[in-house]
Amino acid sequence: MLAARGQTLAVAESLTGGLLGAAITAVPGASAFFRGGVIAYATELKAELLGVPRELLARHGAVHPEVAAAMARGVCRLTGASWGLSTTGVAGPDLQDGQPVGRVFVGLCAPGGAESARRFALVGSREEIRNSTVIHAMSLLQAAIGEHKG
Amino acid sequence: MLAARGQTLAVAESLTGGLLGAAITAVPGASAFFRGGVIAYATELKAELLGVPRELLARHGAVHPEVAAAMARGVCRLTGASWGLSTTGVAGPDLQDGQPVGRVFVGLCAPGGAESARRFALVGSREEIRNSTVIHAMSLLQAAIGEHKG
Repeated sequence: MLAARGQTLAVAESLTGGLLGAAITAVPGASAFFRGGVIAYATELKAELLGVPRELLARHGAVHPEVAAAMARGVCRLTGASWGLSTTGVAGPDLQDGQPVGRVFVGLCAPGGAESARRFALVGSREEIRNSTVIHAMSLLQAAIGEHKG
Repeated sequence: MLAARGQTLAVAESLTGGLLGAAITAVPGASAFFRGGVIAYATELKAELLGVPRELLARHGAVHPEVAAAMARGVCRLTGASWGLSTTGVAGPDLQDGQPVGRVFVGLCAPGGAESARRFALVGSREEIRNSTVIHAMSLLQAAIGEHKG
């Protein structure tokens, strides 16, 4: 769908650590629309590379809808992609910033710059939570592309 | 080993598209040493984000040992990590820049800034070549850490 529209995609990944990009590039021909992105695993990289406001990170930690939205917007700006897709959350097994395992936010930035985030409460092992995050992120993107006027 | 030394790691991924970061972060506690990195799938991102010289990319394409080494050096500079590990190559099924499927370079940047690259000729499907690249990259890093004076 993206290639047909001449649009591109970039990712900004925290808890998935590269798994989202890996899923997208598992298919030959991904280079027609996928530019790449940033694995912002360390909190500082979310600020330094993606421009997530430091006061936002200091106030709420990295697992927050505004952080997810800012990551998506930031990776679009950094890479020049039309669409940005981001993940932040707690894969476990330990809590993070006092937030429960399985709390995940997926951020999305659409062409024109409107960004949003959706919250998920996922269950399972670390591996299952990370895999579920990728599936939810892809579904969210697919729905958004379908609704967006190309 | 890295956490015990107080050293950090970042990745710069082309053909693996995030798979290397995903493998590293599959293990809980990766945040003790893993900072993140860049998925530089599009050639332009190798220049724009990682500082790979444009003339190098224009002359040799992206599948070249000097490109791999420059990607590793670039991601260390960008993220402040002690170690940088990079991948570039042809996952297939099609040739790229006239280079055969399975030709892969893994780049490594060690603390202090010395960078190198190693060439691999991998066989198998796209999935197998990408998975093999991750395994070879991790082995190369492990050997280099073992040899390096912490």
